[in-house]
Amino acid sequence: MATTSDVRAEFYKRIGMRGMTPLWEVMHALVTPQPAGSCVPALWRYDDVHPHVMEAGDLITAREAERRVLVLENPGLTGQSRITGTLYAGLQLILPGEFAADHRHSQTALRFVLQGGGAYTTVDGEKTLMQPGDFVITPQWAWHAHGNDSMDPMVWLDGLDIPLVQFFDAGFAERPEANTPLPPTRPEGDSLARYGSGLLPVDQSAGGPSSPVFNYPYARTREALETMRRNQAWDPCHGLKMKYVNPLTGDHAMPTMAAFMQLLPRGFDGAVYRSTDAMVYVCVEGSGDSIIDDKVYSWGPRDIFVVPGWCRHQHRVTSGDAVLFSFSDRATQQKLGLWREDRGGT
Amino acid sequence: MATTSDVRAEFYKRIGMRGMTPLWEVMHALVTPQPAGSCVPALWRYDDVHPHVMEAGDLITAREAERRVLVLENPGLTGQSRITGTLYAGLQLILPGEFAADHRHSQTALRFVLQGGGAYTTVDGEKTLMQPGDFVITPQWAWHAHGNDSMDPMVWLDGLDIPLVQFFDAGFAERPEANTPLPPTRPEGDSLARYGSGLLPVDQSAGGPSSPVFNYPYARTREALETMRRNQAWDPCHGLKMKYVNPLTGDHAMPTMAAFMQLLPRGFDGAVYRSTDAMVYVCVEGSGDSIIDDKVYSWGPRDIFVVPGWCRHQHRVTSGDAVLFSFSDRATQQKLGLWREDRGGT
Amino acid sequence: MATTSDVRAEFYKRIGMRGMTPLWEVMHALVTPQPAGSCVPALWRYDDVHPHVMEAGDLITAREAERRVLVLENPGLTGQSRITGTLYAGLQLILPGEFAADHRHSQTALRFVLQGGGAYTTVDGEKTLMQPGDFVITPQWAWHAHGNDSMDPMVWLDGLDIPLVQFFDAGFAERPEANTPLPPTRPEGDSLARYGSGLLPVDQSAGGPSSPVFNYPYARTREALETMRRNQAWDPCHGLKMKYVNPLTGDHAMPTMAAFMQLLPRGFDGAVYRSTDAMVYVCVEGSGDSIIDDKVYSWGPRDIFVVPGWCRHQHRVTSGDAVLFSFSDRATQQKLGLWREDRGGT
Amino acid sequence: MATTSDVRAEFYKRIGMRGMTPLWEVMHALVTPQPAGSCVPALWRYDDVHPHVMEAGDLITAREAERRVLVLENPGLTGQSRITGTLYAGLQLILPGEFAADHRHSQTALRFVLQGGGAYTTVDGEKTLMQPGDFVITPQWAWHAHGNDSMDPMVWLDGLDIPLVQFFDAGFAERPEANTPLPPTRPEGDSLARYGSGLLPVDQSAGGPSSPVFNYPYARTREALETMRRNQAWDPCHGLKMKYVNPLTGDHAMPTMAAFMQLLPRGFDGAVYRSTDAMVYVCVEGSGDSIIDDKVYSWGPRDIFVVPGWCRHQHRVTSGDAVLFSFSDRATQQKLGLWREDRGGT
Repeated sequence: MATTSDVRAEFYKRIGMRGMTPLWEVMHALVTPQPAGSCVPALWRYDDVHPHVMEAGDLITAREAERRVLVLENPGLTGQSRITGTLYAGLQLILPGEFAADHRHSQTALRFVLQGGGAYTTVDGEKTLMQPGDFVITPQWAWHAHGNDSMDPMVWLDGLDIPLVQFFDAGFAERPEANTPLPPTRPEGDSLARYGSGLLPVDQSAGGPSSPVFNYPYARTREALETMRRNQAWDPCHGLKMKYVNPLTGDHAMPTMAAFMQLLPRGFDGAVYRSTDAMVYVCVEGSGDSIIDDKVYSWGPRDIFVVPGWCRHQHRVTSGDAVLFSFSDRATQQKLGLWREDRGGT
Repeated sequence: MATTSDVRAEFYKRIGMRGMTPLWEVMHALVTPQPAGSCVPALWRYDDVHPHVMEAGDLITAREAERRVLVLENPGLTGQSRITGTLYAGLQLILPGEFAADHRHSQTALRFVLQGGGAYTTVDGEKTLMQPGDFVITPQWAWHAHGNDSMDPMVWLDGLDIPLVQFFDAGFAERPEANTPLPPTRPEGDSLARYGSGLLPVDQSAGGPSSPVFNYPYARTREALETMRRNQAWDPCHGLKMKYVNPLTGDHAMPTMAAFMQLLPRGFDGAVYRSTDAMVYVCVEGSGDSIIDDKVYSWGPRDIFVVPGWCRHQHRVTSGDAVLFSFSDRATQQKLGLWREDRGGT
Repeated sequence: MATTSDVRAEFYKRIGMRGMTPLWEVMHALVTPQPAGSCVPALWRYDDVHPHVMEAGDLITAREAERRVLVLENPGLTGQSRITGTLYAGLQLILPGEFAADHRHSQTALRFVLQGGGAYTTVDGEKTLMQPGDFVITPQWAWHAHGNDSMDPMVWLDGLDIPLVQFFDAGFAERPEANTPLPPTRPEGDSLARYGSGLLPVDQSAGGPSSPVFNYPYARTREALETMRRNQAWDPCHGLKMKYVNPLTGDHAMPTMAAFMQLLPRGFDGAVYRSTDAMVYVCVEGSGDSIIDDKVYSWGPRDIFVVPGWCRHQHRVTSGDAVLFSFSDRATQQKLGLWREDRGGT
Repeated sequence: MATTSDVRAEFYKRIGMRGMTPLWEVMHALVTPQPAGSCVPALWRYDDVHPHVMEAGDLITAREAERRVLVLENPGLTGQSRITGTLYAGLQLILPGEFAADHRHSQTALRFVLQGGGAYTTVDGEKTLMQPGDFVITPQWAWHAHGNDSMDPMVWLDGLDIPLVQFFDAGFAERPEANTPLPPTRPEGDSLARYGSGLLPVDQSAGGPSSPVFNYPYARTREALETMRRNQAWDPCHGLKMKYVNPLTGDHAMPTMAAFMQLLPRGFDGAVYRSTDAMVYVCVEGSGDSIIDDKVYSWGPRDIFVVPGWCRHQHRVTSGDAVLFSFSDRATQQKLGLWREDRGGT
């Protein structure tokens, strides 16, 4: 006599031939009571990874240099080129004299400068020189190139929404026929002056989804944090945390990703926090510990670490004032009504 | 002597131990010139699948009935419970006398009624009776239940953003302790009258991400299409295509998914079209063919078919006026600046 | 010896020659602790004014008929053609067989039908037949005409932002060279079906400042109120009060004026309320009293009354269910951050 | 036998007793083909008016100093304390050692510093020192005070929306019981750092109708203009014209008024332009002529002039680079859909 499970198995086989499967066998995995992703905490010490980045400089020729990037792969997501479930990050090396020709793609990229000074990025015909701590955007579908006319190698952290665009299967990419830089059409500093001074062109109305400012210099950001700290209104979890915004809208500077800079004062011992967006952190100044799911991760300048989504964590400063840059997919989650945060708790 | 590939392999092994991989080996797969997903065209004829749905009624008890759903799985995405790369769909059967208790989750669900009449959905304490062609929303994190007090089985198509919420790893779910329906707090029809009549409550300001109207009855939608057709401004690709909207904002009715209803008049022979969002169609009236990537898919009432993203297709009507319901992740793609469309072309 | 006041007078004279005056002499009148306008409460009983409207029909020929309007002038603002400080209202009579040719102007107009049935308004080439209680918009700078092909005279209340446009000195007006109606370009009912059914055209994005729906029929509004009343969530001041909205945005249906319809149930005895926008009311059904600044104003069907801004008032119903239409400049005041309301209090 | 005009006169008398007047007698004045206001061009040379401002310093005691303002009255609007049809402007003198206690009102005020350096304005407990060319906002209903702890008199131009608030009859004003300054609650520079650096506080969402930045320092604005000029994309009418914006929204910095700063390079000879908003200009640097309705108005540093709405005008520079500050009611007109502009034409 056929058992229930035999009957069901046979039924599953038959409906499978019709392109159907039984929800009741998988529902518990599809709709979970809490986030249940594979992303795990991770830390890359700059001192550990930097030699490999330099070694890649020998291995990979100038011609290949556009791709001379070491992908930071989350240990919970091996083989997927992801630093979190939705985002990509990599360390890119640009040696003196190199340049990468203009190209564009649906993916939004951010560059956060770790080392060097004097390499440049061009976006839609405007060049910007980059310094450590600068936050640079290459917006989706904007022509962009980069090069290094200085004497020093530059290393930056690349952050892209590659997995996200892949998930939506909506990615396009293009390069011009000739592999030469597009001619500059705007002088250096034009975008920042035009859109980043508290004024906008008189006829400016709506813009695209990305900020028209594409370099947020560290000098300016740092000075703002220093002015604000006199206010002493510190957040118990975040210290003094700011988001980079699009001056045309006040919304996040990029459509898919959010980026942040925060100051944690000497001796800061933060309260527990979690949010649904997994966060990639880069230490810019100072050093400290982050306790993530009860495990301690110690960081100093240029170190990179990941806090998975909905994972309780807290930061404490062990030396100097600490400054942390971070980015996540919060800009997307908020647009979709999915983003949540939770302070303290048990 | 070590070859280049030996050297590189050894390097890859060393950096792998540091949680890094070489971008240059995978970049071509990560950033593609065109969308390159696995979703393929598919068609489920109602006459083929309906017997299995009814058979599930025997196999699965009332207690399990909340999950008595046959998942429509895209042949290019087997084992993933997805009808497109980002969305889930299934056929749900509600037998007379059954009910499913209130629960809520981060996923947004839509219900499109295929067969029956008299089953109900309750959302946040308001009940709505459902008829074929009705488009019903259970918004993210809203308490919802359903039941069938009529004498007829009901079959509806469930559409959810399950893969999307899973991708962002931001899903929560909850059910009340007692497995009993929450008491009704608003009379039937209140939401539609309050938000769907061209007026809004005097003190209404912003709402949540979903439309406060949660049943868009087919009778009303069909009548509107019939009035509009006198205008004769038919779109060569779409006929007369409308999107369901949130009356508080004019934006799509759901934060993650877009839903549409379109009228194709007798003899319509549509032009070629494609967009980056994969589309799930349900035929409501009439019959016709869709040519998808040069292959013909013929459909009639209650048939369900999928057009993958960025896949050229055209519709033609073979009998009567055709009415097609459809849904996709366009609401998300547009928010992220990723959505594109392309008319005609070769 | 010159007194202070002599010295000042001489100074005022000298600066007057330079186009300057002393603020300290007028500041108390310019910046007041509370609103201090000249608008006063007023009531026009339809039975009193209707004979005069009909008499105007004899006095004013068909050729002049476009202007056959009796202006309702606020007793506190005589000679200014204003019903409140910022708005104009008048009673317009359209006799059978008359029509007024297309014209357009910067002023937004609303028409609220009081009597008759069968006259029409055309807006941008679409005609709508009008019935009592219908709320019709002729948006700023939209071509509009009207006529009466029925056997009955029609009387409607015209509401315009004439004083407001005059204040900003930004008014333009235009009529075509030939004094003939523009040809219809859209069938009747197209706008309401296209924009007022909970759906919008698939490619619809932003619109102009006015609602694309230009007739909100009373039958539909009344039915919505009747459905909502089962909810029993009555506001102590307003009963069940709804605002007419633009389905593309959820904002007020007109850029400068707000319009409302409210149901006060049999026996309603409302609480005290005031807001900064002076309100013009029209009784549609039932009868009642409004106590405005301690004085009673009794109204019945088609009566029109004014509640000045920031003036305490309350409504009570004396017969039947009462339905009140109203309009004000709230849409402007809210955009400017000026609007305030105050419930109860002394 | 009674003439038509007798009959009409008698009718007008009868309806007048019912609070009604005939539209056909006044319509031509109410709805005009073009703007038809009373505002006229005007120029106040600083050298002419400054002695009177200083003289007011002797005439008006410190106690009265809050109102020690000479109103700039448009010659077409005498007795109305208006510089344009909708706006107020005045020259305010603050002598060393004076201060004006905190107060607030519905009116939005702007201060544009003409002379001096070292006086301060406080807004909601934050103090800002003011320098020539600084643009300072005291937002509607925000507590604000000012004082002068420096050794120099300060003169600034006050711009307020007094006539506009009066027109809407929606003005409130308040002062604290004790006539003492409110204690500072935020350090100097906090708002500018917090909201004006291209970042926003992480939890910042929507704000009020005014910019949270309340001092836009000239040094910063001027430097931005200088950077932008290298772009050489000069507007033929405006040179390089920027609007002050609210960083939370990208909209004008104030809800009712728009403010602008523009650079006209040496030798600039501008094209004809007009817009519906009457504009108040202040020359900051350089000198030039404005041809307004065919009449020449020559201006130099600190001179103030008015271009009425819809009045053709053009600017030419006669010495140095010219920098012009300006403000108008454009922010309101744009919200209401009333604003128009016109380039060139005859």
